[in-house]
Amino acid sequence: MIISMRKNATKEEIEHVCERIREFGFKVHSIEGEERVVIGAVGVGDVTPCLEMLEATPGVESAVRISAPYKFVSREFKAERTRIAVNGVEIGGDEFVVMAGPCSVESAQQIMETAEAVAGAGAKILRGGAFKPRTSPYDFQGLELEGLQLLAQAREATGLAIVTEVLSERDVERVAEYANIIQVGARNMQNYALLKALGKCPRPVLLKRGMSSTIKELLMSAEYLTAHGNPNVMLCERGIRTFETATRNTCDLSAVAVLNELTHLPVIVDPSHATGKQSLVPAVSRAAVAIGADGLLVEVHPCPEKAFSDGPQSLNLEQFRSMMRDLKPYLRLWKETRVAAAATA
Amino acid sequence: MIISMRKNATKEEIEHVCERIREFGFKVHSIEGEERVVIGAVGVGDVTPCLEMLEATPGVESAVRISAPYKFVSREFKAERTRIAVNGVEIGGDEFVVMAGPCSVESAQQIMETAEAVAGAGAKILRGGAFKPRTSPYDFQGLELEGLQLLAQAREATGLAIVTEVLSERDVERVAEYANIIQVGARNMQNYALLKALGKCPRPVLLKRGMSSTIKELLMSAEYLTAHGNPNVMLCERGIRTFETATRNTCDLSAVAVLNELTHLPVIVDPSHATGKQSLVPAVSRAAVAIGADGLLVEVHPCPEKAFSDGPQSLNLEQFRSMMRDLKPYLRLWKETRVAAAATA
Amino acid sequence: MIISMRKNATKEEIEHVCERIREFGFKVHSIEGEERVVIGAVGVGDVTPCLEMLEATPGVESAVRISAPYKFVSREFKAERTRIAVNGVEIGGDEFVVMAGPCSVESAQQIMETAEAVAGAGAKILRGGAFKPRTSPYDFQGLELEGLQLLAQAREATGLAIVTEVLSERDVERVAEYANIIQVGARNMQNYALLKALGKCPRPVLLKRGMSSTIKELLMSAEYLTAHGNPNVMLCERGIRTFETATRNTCDLSAVAVLNELTHLPVIVDPSHATGKQSLVPAVSRAAVAIGADGLLVEVHPCPEKAFSDGPQSLNLEQFRSMMRDLKPYLRLWKETRVAAAATA
Amino acid sequence: MIISMRKNATKEEIEHVCERIREFGFKVHSIEGEERVVIGAVGVGDVTPCLEMLEATPGVESAVRISAPYKFVSREFKAERTRIAVNGVEIGGDEFVVMAGPCSVESAQQIMETAEAVAGAGAKILRGGAFKPRTSPYDFQGLELEGLQLLAQAREATGLAIVTEVLSERDVERVAEYANIIQVGARNMQNYALLKALGKCPRPVLLKRGMSSTIKELLMSAEYLTAHGNPNVMLCERGIRTFETATRNTCDLSAVAVLNELTHLPVIVDPSHATGKQSLVPAVSRAAVAIGADGLLVEVHPCPEKAFSDGPQSLNLEQFRSMMRDLKPYLRLWKETRVAAAATA
Repeated sequence: MIISMRKNATKEEIEHVCERIREFGFKVHSIEGEERVVIGAVGVGDVTPCLEMLEATPGVESAVRISAPYKFVSREFKAERTRIAVNGVEIGGDEFVVMAGPCSVESAQQIMETAEAVAGAGAKILRGGAFKPRTSPYDFQGLELEGLQLLAQAREATGLAIVTEVLSERDVERVAEYANIIQVGARNMQNYALLKALGKCPRPVLLKRGMSSTIKELLMSAEYLTAHGNPNVMLCERGIRTFETATRNTCDLSAVAVLNELTHLPVIVDPSHATGKQSLVPAVSRAAVAIGADGLLVEVHPCPEKAFSDGPQSLNLEQFRSMMRDLKPYLRLWKETRVAAAATA
Repeated sequence: MIISMRKNATKEEIEHVCERIREFGFKVHSIEGEERVVIGAVGVGDVTPCLEMLEATPGVESAVRISAPYKFVSREFKAERTRIAVNGVEIGGDEFVVMAGPCSVESAQQIMETAEAVAGAGAKILRGGAFKPRTSPYDFQGLELEGLQLLAQAREATGLAIVTEVLSERDVERVAEYANIIQVGARNMQNYALLKALGKCPRPVLLKRGMSSTIKELLMSAEYLTAHGNPNVMLCERGIRTFETATRNTCDLSAVAVLNELTHLPVIVDPSHATGKQSLVPAVSRAAVAIGADGLLVEVHPCPEKAFSDGPQSLNLEQFRSMMRDLKPYLRLWKETRVAAAATA
Repeated sequence: MIISMRKNATKEEIEHVCERIREFGFKVHSIEGEERVVIGAVGVGDVTPCLEMLEATPGVESAVRISAPYKFVSREFKAERTRIAVNGVEIGGDEFVVMAGPCSVESAQQIMETAEAVAGAGAKILRGGAFKPRTSPYDFQGLELEGLQLLAQAREATGLAIVTEVLSERDVERVAEYANIIQVGARNMQNYALLKALGKCPRPVLLKRGMSSTIKELLMSAEYLTAHGNPNVMLCERGIRTFETATRNTCDLSAVAVLNELTHLPVIVDPSHATGKQSLVPAVSRAAVAIGADGLLVEVHPCPEKAFSDGPQSLNLEQFRSMMRDLKPYLRLWKETRVAAAATA
Repeated sequence: MIISMRKNATKEEIEHVCERIREFGFKVHSIEGEERVVIGAVGVGDVTPCLEMLEATPGVESAVRISAPYKFVSREFKAERTRIAVNGVEIGGDEFVVMAGPCSVESAQQIMETAEAVAGAGAKILRGGAFKPRTSPYDFQGLELEGLQLLAQAREATGLAIVTEVLSERDVERVAEYANIIQVGARNMQNYALLKALGKCPRPVLLKRGMSSTIKELLMSAEYLTAHGNPNVMLCERGIRTFETATRNTCDLSAVAVLNELTHLPVIVDPSHATGKQSLVPAVSRAAVAIGADGLLVEVHPCPEKAFSDGPQSLNLEQFRSMMRDLKPYLRLWKETRVAAAATA
């Protein structure tokens, strides 16, 4: 921590600050500048409570953290990439993984038709919502248990693993029974009760970035999962909220590159929610591959205009097949880069 | 709804769109412009599913909602202000209501000392967190049940009503046993499982605006509460996330004026979280009174530099007393305006 | 400056950093923590070039400035408020100053009618655009010289001082001939060529905050004006761009309180651009008075629906009169506070 | 335009609105819904003044534009891509164009060394600032005329074309004498005086997106240039301002895909300003190629830690060479896609 005292801080205030820092178990070094005193505090242990104390202490102008507030999820803690094995597929490994399917599970026919099509086109994991977080209480809220059962049937028929969202702590066990990967939606990224419950759950978690969450906050929420017992976390960039309205959200693709520097966890991109517009999904998917994501989460529906939700951003089956064809040469480059990086590491 | 077709939309596409709209039960009026066809759709019933369908239908450029997506919380549904009676205090009525207290309940002594001081200075409701949503899993998470019990003791001693946050559906009943008002924090504004649980709860809810939620989304979350059975909702502006870093958040004070036009629900301002800085709290509080809020939610601590959380934005007891003194002439103007408005309504 | 080295920085890298800092004329203090080395650099002189150098130097994780990058505009440089005398009115002094008038000067009749009405209601300064910055090249661009002349006639008739915008360096002299205060619009806040030209101009400047400029950047632009010779600067909060769309911009009212801590320059609030909606202007104006602004800049038009620009956010003459009446008791409180503060300072 | 009347609008108000619209030369179609009247207005001509009028007219709830406010720059106006020939290079054509060089021109040696290195690595255009827009008046402001002369010498020696920024209308002619492409910086995107001056200039313009400008506003500023006579405009995405602080700005890469749908103008990506961090530049550059940009604008410096400005985000010469090598297979895919698209168009 670096504590910058106010210009007019008294000697007593400075001494008081130093004492308080020592009470927290840190060592103190103070530097007398021309204009003000700056204090460095070093040592081991969490600095957050000490920082908060300092910012509320008379004479202090600012108190800044030097080290990152997360541990288990950082590259410094673990240099090699985390690989998460799910139903014979590995996320974070040497293959780029495409997860695809409808926003909501709507019927046996819809989910089965989609599952077969996306499997045929090269997807490895089926997405589909059984519990839907909707802005309006009057909108379709999902098929719930029936939706989970339909997903399980689709898995049986196609061999695809299943990723689906959980909205409530009460449903964690039930969803874990059916799903291979449990999704935490953007609106729940800081629902700490849910994160704690998922920390104790034996399934990997796909953690979506909140629509106005910083990269650091995303990593802190991943830290909640690991600190409570679940190290199998994949992060998902799905667009952030900005002033721009031409797209539903602003896809923060460079966050993928930032995350690859800061953490060993796999990073997935959701081009459907990020753009909100079907016509933009293939271009953003290409960019996600090129920038080094570990996978995609794409909305696909047999007939987007009849979708119960998110139709405008869903590819139809033929559009998905076409996108997967076009991605092939990019995926080849992706794999070369990934294998080369592993060899030099 | 107004549907604008693409310039090059075919006759078949236009006809298809009109048919689909009629299937949803709306009447269709189409307008042929020089450049494109625009279709108006009118009728009763929720337009959301129809809008989503349209945006995914070939030939459609955009589909826009005309009416608001919320009902019960709107001024059009109910013109007179909602007044919420709590323990002899009325929120939304003819008195401006100050809620004050520490971020976290830390000890019997801390909460009792604060309660007595804020009651003495004119606060009517005591705030204090027993369950704390913290960005880091390593930070203090609250005294939980013990915190609730200490709040209840403080109420008994001072007569102040209690507002405290609930983080988990599982705790709703337990918190409702102790609290007069249940707070939903900014991070949980779109935790729909929690909102549904609180819809069935007999206690009024203080719903904080998410840090990147629009005013419309805030009203939709309030609509969840009312649609699920709980009409006693007060909204809370606590700052939104923007690019500015001089303050912890950006206090969207004009949102109070906007909400007063759109809804009959009371609006509370939290100057502590909005600014993150103790020295700014009195000025923002004055502005909140002047712009027509119904109350304040202020963080107060006997010794901010020893607070377990949010010290930098907490007033100490003397600072709170001083602020309450300075607010008095503004509160007199507030009351005159409120009573005059009620007389002409 | 505080420089935090990477965990794995070598001894050579640390030594190299220390040497480079000394080359810039600063003294170096280094602190060895458990995990990394932190270096403090103190001395006089601008640290910006040194900071940029450091962030590009191997082994450095981050380099942070401790002192503010502006000088002349800071409270530390000059504690007492700047008072700007214009045509018998003082901005930043013991009277709250209302500037009002149309967005654009449109005709002799329009500006004269408005000038007389706002003067009668208590405004001291007439606003009106002769050069208009418009998003579209096809929109009305202002009456230019004729507009300036009409403003001058209105001043003669009413005694009101004139504030009007300049868009181009080439027009600075011409505008200065007619205007008492020259306005720099939000889009030009970082038009440094224009700021330099205005630095040499003998007229006070009203500097509007850019729609996505931080408070610090606003102060840096004010520093351009003062550093180039013009100390008579008033700052103007006119709303910032955020994700919220219910208002045209988000009025950052707490910026007024922040600025009152950081600078001695007067601060004006423009409730018209900040909200974009006439019905919200009186409430935001009350809040601006209460939070401690020095004045208002309000759009007023005899017939807003016929205005060439900004009709939706303009008050008509009667609405302006009514607002000024309602503000009176708030202005009385404002003056009491201001005079009391001056007495204790 | 679609005008939605308030629920309680009177017959007189509706009739008044229809009349006003007809005065502006549009035809009126009104639709009576269950709850309110909606009016459609069609015709040719600019709708902006009519829209502003309507929003200020009694009884109107909202007035929405259907058609885009720009013309010359739209795909609807001109379907084929604009190709801009500069010194034997074509931007917007069948080759991806890399522009590279230092933030500021600092010395003959620096610019010559950089020019030779980037030319050797495959760049076609040399960037370098002679006039620098700096947040602080105390920072290096550029070598001005001397900088322009050094750029011209570098062009002579290497054959690279030159792109450099102009800050002031007064300098347009002087800069046009030396530069092949004139850059408008992000802070000047809405400096309309400058845009008008450049509209009459015979050089192509590289127009950078303002840091908080929407895609629509960027296109409107391009429309200023074309409407005033200069059709040779390339757009540049350089990151927008958001709440995220891990990167200097947030690179809105999907804006490239959006622009490719809306306009025929070439789109350049600046990964240096977008991220502010050298280590992220290669990944973002790959993504820019994959998403379909027409070129890159990259900061390169022989010794970033000694750069007068923007060192942290500059590649050194070896890093630039390495990035260009790694981009090769992506550029091959880019070209295949571009040629195939041209063949089917």
